[in-house]
Amino acid sequence: MASLESFESTIHFETRLAPLMELIEKGKYSKVFVFADSNTSEKCLPVFREMLDDFNGFDLIETDPGEENKNIDFCIGIWKTLLDFEADRKSLMINLGGGVITDMGGFVASTYKRGIDFVNIPTTLLSQVDASVGGKTGIDVDNVKNMVGTFTLPKAVFIEHEFLNTLSERELLSGFAEVIKHGLIADKDYYETLKNSDFKQLDPAIVLHSVEIKNQVVTEDPKEQNLRKILNFGHTIGHAVESYALNHDQKPLTHGEAIAIGMICEAFLSQRYNHLEEAELKDITSYITSLYPEYTIAPDSFEALLKLMQSDKKNEHGQILFSLLDHIGHCEYNCRVTEKDILESLVYYNSIYAV
Amino acid sequence: MASLESFESTIHFETRLAPLMELIEKGKYSKVFVFADSNTSEKCLPVFREMLDDFNGFDLIETDPGEENKNIDFCIGIWKTLLDFEADRKSLMINLGGGVITDMGGFVASTYKRGIDFVNIPTTLLSQVDASVGGKTGIDVDNVKNMVGTFTLPKAVFIEHEFLNTLSERELLSGFAEVIKHGLIADKDYYETLKNSDFKQLDPAIVLHSVEIKNQVVTEDPKEQNLRKILNFGHTIGHAVESYALNHDQKPLTHGEAIAIGMICEAFLSQRYNHLEEAELKDITSYITSLYPEYTIAPDSFEALLKLMQSDKKNEHGQILFSLLDHIGHCEYNCRVTEKDILESLVYYNSIYAV
Repeated sequence: MASLESFESTIHFETRLAPLMELIEKGKYSKVFVFADSNTSEKCLPVFREMLDDFNGFDLIETDPGEENKNIDFCIGIWKTLLDFEADRKSLMINLGGGVITDMGGFVASTYKRGIDFVNIPTTLLSQVDASVGGKTGIDVDNVKNMVGTFTLPKAVFIEHEFLNTLSERELLSGFAEVIKHGLIADKDYYETLKNSDFKQLDPAIVLHSVEIKNQVVTEDPKEQNLRKILNFGHTIGHAVESYALNHDQKPLTHGEAIAIGMICEAFLSQRYNHLEEAELKDITSYITSLYPEYTIAPDSFEALLKLMQSDKKNEHGQILFSLLDHIGHCEYNCRVTEKDILESLVYYNSIYAV
Repeated sequence: MASLESFESTIHFETRLAPLMELIEKGKYSKVFVFADSNTSEKCLPVFREMLDDFNGFDLIETDPGEENKNIDFCIGIWKTLLDFEADRKSLMINLGGGVITDMGGFVASTYKRGIDFVNIPTTLLSQVDASVGGKTGIDVDNVKNMVGTFTLPKAVFIEHEFLNTLSERELLSGFAEVIKHGLIADKDYYETLKNSDFKQLDPAIVLHSVEIKNQVVTEDPKEQNLRKILNFGHTIGHAVESYALNHDQKPLTHGEAIAIGMICEAFLSQRYNHLEEAELKDITSYITSLYPEYTIAPDSFEALLKLMQSDKKNEHGQILFSLLDHIGHCEYNCRVTEKDILESLVYYNSIYAV
């Protein structure tokens, strides 16, 4: 259907993986590995094989699903598996799965024997519009998200709409938070279009435009020196809430659920610090709460959340830095916010559901 | 005294670290860390401080010395320490020590929060002429040397002759093996000069020329696609012998001692496969054995050594590839050798000391 140039790699849309076989043949790879978790190997691997005319010339490396497994212990296991399979520098790794797979697979590939080629085939909406584009790889250490990683580009990214059929509503909604974010930070018309769309029946053109927005930003600032920071809207608070929930909630939040919370809090801060209008804050709050489940940020977690925000990668010189909207469709970065106002934004979020 | 341009970083010779303060000030770093092991923090840190007029504006991260500690567990410890110190992306890491420190410190820095700046101050002859130049970082996993790492350039490298005064003869000899290698693969006249030099009283110009040779090679082929492989002369067998000794010998070989053994074996293979003359093989053998201690490669380790060689990073498509001399002063790469001849080269080495 389409392809986007991103730095030196190409993002393919709905090509049914046709260019992948060519890439494998041209690369003269000694071995090909498919890295997947037990979910994607069950649900997506058959689709992958079928798209490639029952291509079988690879070894499968399977891991456990879930963010809690995106850690260094699993990495060590994968490095050793590659060694056991006698993977050399001319090996190719195909990451087939959600963000955990593309983040961790990318990190393992970018460091195994100082780097082998890899390709991302994101199978969740979240990884299609976010994790697989932009060259970030990463793993969590001590439950700090992406504390360790590299900036390394995949050889190519393949975005196939068909994989979205394998997802639950909750998984779709998780990815949809990043789609909403792209509208909020870069394109008001797109945001309005989203409000009239059904996330359960997404038009491929919506996914494409979301990837276009992300790709444009990361191409301008690959190493997150400046502009790329706008992609962190909703993430300073959202990541902290997500990390905390991972360790404390019985049913942890999805990434998108946490980012939805973070976007409401940071829209509150945008109104306080950055000219976002009261009406826009209300619009964002009501649209997001219409989609995402009710949640309460436990007041006794507030201090721990601040501590988690302090380790955010965007920070410099000990100051927590935010990316805040100045209006819907435009975002600024490196905004300083007091701790008191961060806490107030959490209280604001909780007040939405107060009787 | 001098400086060499290497890609985008500079290698400074005998500047008494003067440009380092400028680099720190211009970089506007939020925090500066010095990474050292307990040996270098005792012997080299005072010299470092004195060169910088008692500069004190850094936190020290100290690790245990020795190749056996260049592993992922120590990395995790350092990542966590950086997090505890609230190191952000604008932090600078100064690696002060031998190859273990520059390899591991470079790897930690290149992956912490997807990469912070680092500077190498190699304090051993080995790291001055080898590890600190060329942008390779790495750690051992499962005792496989540098199984995991990145290609990442330090912001600068500082080579100070004064640090060599902190070394034992055995440590000097370890680095001197790489100096000899540089002569063998690239400069016959230099090799002849070395034969008339005393490794215990090295002229700084000798060190400088060794770094020049290495820098020239790595600048031409940073990612080891082709030419850079010549730097692996002596290392295919040498690394295997070193790894094996680390796990089996009471007093493990130094890197240089292992490479000295590897160079003799691979000179033997060079004669068999690559036109090296018998007289040259004899010359190399007698020069190296005049410097390095007697050693026997245990025959019951031969199979294990072959297995270790199979995981060498230079290999492609399952074939063990060597870099072999065609004459003293010139080396070729991607040379295929049979297992039988590899074993014969080990027997040749052992025969030197046979009664």
